[in-house]
Amino acid sequence: MRGTMMDFPLTLPHLLDRAGFLFARAEMISRCPRGTVTRTTYADFHRRARRLASALIRLGLRPGDRVSTMMWTHATHMHCFFGIPCGGGIINPLNLRLHPQELAAIVKHAGSRFLIVDDALLPVYESLRAAGASFEKVIANRYAGGDVPPEYLDFDELIANEGDDFVYPKLDENDGASMFFTSGTTGASKAVVYSHRSLVLHGLTLTMADCFALSHNDVILPVVPLFHANGWGFSHAAAITGAKFVFLGPNLDPETILDAIVEHGVTFAAGVPTIWLNVLCALEKYPERWKFPPLRALCGGTAPPLGLIRGLDKRGIHIMHAWGMTETSPLATAPLVKSHMQEYGEDALYEVRAKQGLGVPLVELRVMRPENPADEDCANTVEAPRDGKTSGELEIRGPWIAGSYYNAPDQAHRWTADGWFRTGDVATMDEEGYIKIVDRAKDLVKSGGEWISSVDLENTLMGHPAVKEAAVIGVPHPKWQERPLAAVVLKDGAAATSEELRSYLAKTFAKWQLPDAFVFMSEIPRTSVGKFKKTALREQFANWRWD
Amino acid sequence: MRGTMMDFPLTLPHLLDRAGFLFARAEMISRCPRGTVTRTTYADFHRRARRLASALIRLGLRPGDRVSTMMWTHATHMHCFFGIPCGGGIINPLNLRLHPQELAAIVKHAGSRFLIVDDALLPVYESLRAAGASFEKVIANRYAGGDVPPEYLDFDELIANEGDDFVYPKLDENDGASMFFTSGTTGASKAVVYSHRSLVLHGLTLTMADCFALSHNDVILPVVPLFHANGWGFSHAAAITGAKFVFLGPNLDPETILDAIVEHGVTFAAGVPTIWLNVLCALEKYPERWKFPPLRALCGGTAPPLGLIRGLDKRGIHIMHAWGMTETSPLATAPLVKSHMQEYGEDALYEVRAKQGLGVPLVELRVMRPENPADEDCANTVEAPRDGKTSGELEIRGPWIAGSYYNAPDQAHRWTADGWFRTGDVATMDEEGYIKIVDRAKDLVKSGGEWISSVDLENTLMGHPAVKEAAVIGVPHPKWQERPLAAVVLKDGAAATSEELRSYLAKTFAKWQLPDAFVFMSEIPRTSVGKFKKTALREQFANWRWD
Repeated sequence: MRGTMMDFPLTLPHLLDRAGFLFARAEMISRCPRGTVTRTTYADFHRRARRLASALIRLGLRPGDRVSTMMWTHATHMHCFFGIPCGGGIINPLNLRLHPQELAAIVKHAGSRFLIVDDALLPVYESLRAAGASFEKVIANRYAGGDVPPEYLDFDELIANEGDDFVYPKLDENDGASMFFTSGTTGASKAVVYSHRSLVLHGLTLTMADCFALSHNDVILPVVPLFHANGWGFSHAAAITGAKFVFLGPNLDPETILDAIVEHGVTFAAGVPTIWLNVLCALEKYPERWKFPPLRALCGGTAPPLGLIRGLDKRGIHIMHAWGMTETSPLATAPLVKSHMQEYGEDALYEVRAKQGLGVPLVELRVMRPENPADEDCANTVEAPRDGKTSGELEIRGPWIAGSYYNAPDQAHRWTADGWFRTGDVATMDEEGYIKIVDRAKDLVKSGGEWISSVDLENTLMGHPAVKEAAVIGVPHPKWQERPLAAVVLKDGAAATSEELRSYLAKTFAKWQLPDAFVFMSEIPRTSVGKFKKTALREQFANWRWD
Repeated sequence: MRGTMMDFPLTLPHLLDRAGFLFARAEMISRCPRGTVTRTTYADFHRRARRLASALIRLGLRPGDRVSTMMWTHATHMHCFFGIPCGGGIINPLNLRLHPQELAAIVKHAGSRFLIVDDALLPVYESLRAAGASFEKVIANRYAGGDVPPEYLDFDELIANEGDDFVYPKLDENDGASMFFTSGTTGASKAVVYSHRSLVLHGLTLTMADCFALSHNDVILPVVPLFHANGWGFSHAAAITGAKFVFLGPNLDPETILDAIVEHGVTFAAGVPTIWLNVLCALEKYPERWKFPPLRALCGGTAPPLGLIRGLDKRGIHIMHAWGMTETSPLATAPLVKSHMQEYGEDALYEVRAKQGLGVPLVELRVMRPENPADEDCANTVEAPRDGKTSGELEIRGPWIAGSYYNAPDQAHRWTADGWFRTGDVATMDEEGYIKIVDRAKDLVKSGGEWISSVDLENTLMGHPAVKEAAVIGVPHPKWQERPLAAVVLKDGAAATSEELRSYLAKTFAKWQLPDAFVFMSEIPRTSVGKFKKTALREQFANWRWD
C-alpha cells in the first residue's frame, strides 16, 4: 500500500523561492579583485537567478544542456548555481587552477554549450580556447569591473532585459542539476552529475544539529571555492538557511581570511588543512592582531594534523573534521562526539576528533578487505572487523553518492556488484563507528608485504616543532618492493636533521615503518585544490638510490 | 539528463540500522505504571524492532498490512514504530482516549489484522471488542508487569523466539509506513498514510538547527503521546539522533514532568499548551521545588498564550511555538527569529515568538481568500496580501503533506485543483513570511458580516490574572447571525466579574468584537488530545437566550 502523501519533488526552485521570500534582506558579501566589497541580498539572489534561467532559455538552453562557469567565489557565481539548474540546465563549474589542456578535455567531455566567465578570467578562457575548447555563447561577468569586450555577451545586460515573471520548467527530482569533475591526480578527469534530489538532501544535512548545524544566524565564510567538489554544498545550505555569506574571491591568504572573520563576524568557515595551517601560522606570528569570538571551522580534503586542531582550539577556532570526495557530494562523515564520550579526558577527546567521524544520516559506510589477505589476487572481499585497527577499502552508498561516472563505462569497476562505491581510500572503523582514513589506496607504502600509512607518518612529522610540511611516498626498493621517503619543509628559521626526525618518529612507529630517507625541500608540489601532489614527488624520486 | 547519483530509497530500515550500531549504548528511559523505571538502549531498540518484524511476518503479515497498537508512550511502543514498517507492515497507533465506538470504527476503516496492546490497556481492548472490533491476532505487552492471559500472544515470548538474522523486505520509499487518524471533532475520523519517504524527511527536519535542532546530546522528553499526530515525529528523530529519550507513559501531571526534567537532565520537551500551563502553575506554586538548567520546549496543538511564553521564560523553559496537524506529519512551521530581528525590543520579539513561525524547508504555505469577499458563494480564491492583517484559509504542500485521505473519496474537496491541502485554519502571513493562525475556519465567530477570532479573545482572556482557561464560541443571534460567548475557568481562589473581564478585553479589542456573555465554569470540555471541545460548548449553549 502506498502512502497518501503528496508527490512533491525535491528540486532547487523550491529552495530558491523560499530563500528569496523568507530571507529577502539577508546579505551575501563578495570581495572583488581590487579589494572592494559588494553587498547583495537574497532578494537579489532570487531575482538574478530566475532572470538568468529565463535569459538562458531565450538563448536556446534546452533541458539537460550543460553550461560551464569559470568564476571565482562570489554572489554572481551563487546566482549561476541556481539559475542554470532552475532553468533546466546543468551547471559545470570549472576548476580554474587546472592546465588549459585538461580544462579543454573537461569541457569537451561535459559537452558544454555555453560558458559564463568572470571578466578577470578572460585570459584563462583565451588559453582554454587556444587548447581547443569552444562554446556557442560566452557570457562575461563584470567582476573586476570595466567594460565587457564586444565579442562576449554581458551578464548584467542579459539579465537586465528579462522580466520577473519566469515560470520554472517542469523538473523531475532525479534530473541532473550540476556536473563536477574529480581532480584526478592520475588518468583522465571523471565527472559526476548531481541531481536536484541529491543536492537538496545533501544541503539539508549540512544544517542538521549533529552535522554542521548551519543556521540562519550564522555568518558563513566558505574558503573552499564554489568550483571545488560541489563547493562542499554551501550554495545549497545558503539557500536553505538564508545565512549571511562572505565570499572572498581569489585572495585566500591567511591575513585576508582573518581580516574577514573579524570584519564580518564570521561564525563558521570551511577549508582544507593548508588554509588552516596558514591561518594558525599567522595567528602565532601576530598574536595580538586579530580578536574574534570563537568560531567553527569545517576542515576537509585531507586530514588536519592533531597539532593543528589543538593549536587552533587555543585561538578560538574549533576544527570540525569531516570526510568526503567529489563522488560523495562531498559530505559523508561528521565529527559528532557521542554523549558518553563527554567525560573523556582531553587526549582521548582529541583522538576522537582527529578521526573522520561518523557516517551522517542516509549515508552507509563499510570497510572491506580481501577474504584471503595472503593472496594478492584475491577478488572476494569481506567486511573488516570494526576494531579501529583492521584496515581495508572504504565503500559507501547513499542518495548523494555517485552511482556511476558520466559517460565512463570503463570505470564500472569502481562500484561493487551489490552497488557500493569503492572510494579508493583505505580506512579503519572502530566499534563506535568512527572512520579513520589510513591512506589513499595508491599512497600506501607497500614494504615487504606490509602496508605503511604515509598519512600517519606525515601527520606525526608535522607535529615536530621544526616541521612545516611533510609528505611521505613509497619509493621502489630492490629488496622491500617499496620503502618510505619523507619530503620535509622546515618552518622559517627552524633547523632539523634526518637523525633527529627519525628518532622523533621512532617514539610512535615501529622501526620498519620509519622512512629510510628524509629530503629537505623549500616546498612540496601541490594539486590544483591544495593537496600534496604525490605523483610529482614519485616522479622526482623514481630513481632514488638507496644506500 | 538524469543525475548519476545512486537510487537510494529513503526508508526506515536505514535509520534503524544506523541507530542500532552508532548509538548502541544510548538510553531510552520508560516510566512504568507503578512508577518504576526501565532503561533500554538503542541496541535493544534495534534488536527488538527487527525481531518484531520477523515475528510478524512469521505470523502472516503481508506487505502493506495494518497492525494497530494500543499502547502508552514507552520504549516498546518505539520498537513497534519501526518493527512494523521495517517488516513491510503499516503501524496504526490508536488514540486510547477516544470512545470505544469511535475506535472500533477506526480499526474497521484501517482494516487492521493484528493488534499490539499494553497489558494495562486490556480492559480498553475488551470494550473495543464489545464495540465490534476484531483482530486476527492480539499481542499483549507486559508493561504493567505480571502474566499475559493465555488468550493473547505474549510480546516478549514472541520476539524471544526470533533470531537476529532478519532480512528486510524490499521497500519502496513511497510505501506506507504508518496510518494515523485525525481526531475529528466533527464527522467521521479520517486517515492519512505516511510513507517511508515522508517520515524520513520529516524526521530529518526536526534535527535542523533552525527547526528544533534535536541532537544526540539532547535529553528529550516527548510529553506528547506517540499515538497523537505521528507522535510529532519524535520516534524518527530518536532514530536519527540516538538522543537519550525519556518516556513518561500515562502519567502526565506537572509534578511528574518536572520531576523527570530534574532527574534525567531533560534539555528538550514537547507538549500542548495545557501541559505547559499546568507546568507553569506548578512552578509558581512551588518556586523552590525544582531546579534545572534552561531547556527548550516545543509547544503545538494550539497556540500558547503570550503570558505562558513569558511566564515560562522566567523559569528557564524556552517555548518554541510551531504549527502543524495530523495531515502535515505534523511539522509545518518553526519559530525561527531572523538575524535582523535580534535587535528588536522585548515586546516585539515576543510578538514574533507568539506567531506560528516560518514554513520549514520543503514546505510551502499560502493564505487564500475569496476573489470577491462580498459574495458568500464565491468559489474562486486568490492569495491574500502578505501584510499580517488580511486573513484567509491556510493552504499547504510538501513531501510530508497528505495528498489525500485513505479511502475517503468524499473528502477530495480538501485539496485544491492545483494540489494544495486546505488546512481549515484561518491565518495571516506577514511581509516576513510569519504565519499567524487566526482561528479554525469553523470556530470563527461570524457577526454581522464581520469575522471575530475566538483564539485572539481566548489568549487575551488567559492573560488576565484571575483566568485559568477561556474558550470563546459563536452562539446563534437573531440580529447578528452569531455573537461571541466566553466560557471562563477561574484560577483556584481567584474572583472576577463579567464586567471586569469585558473592560479588560476592551483595552485590546473593538467594542463589536467583545463577548456579549461570560459564563463561569469549573472546567472546559476537552477533546481526547486536550484541545477545547468547542462542539460540546456549542451544543451546551445552542439555545442561549440573548437579553
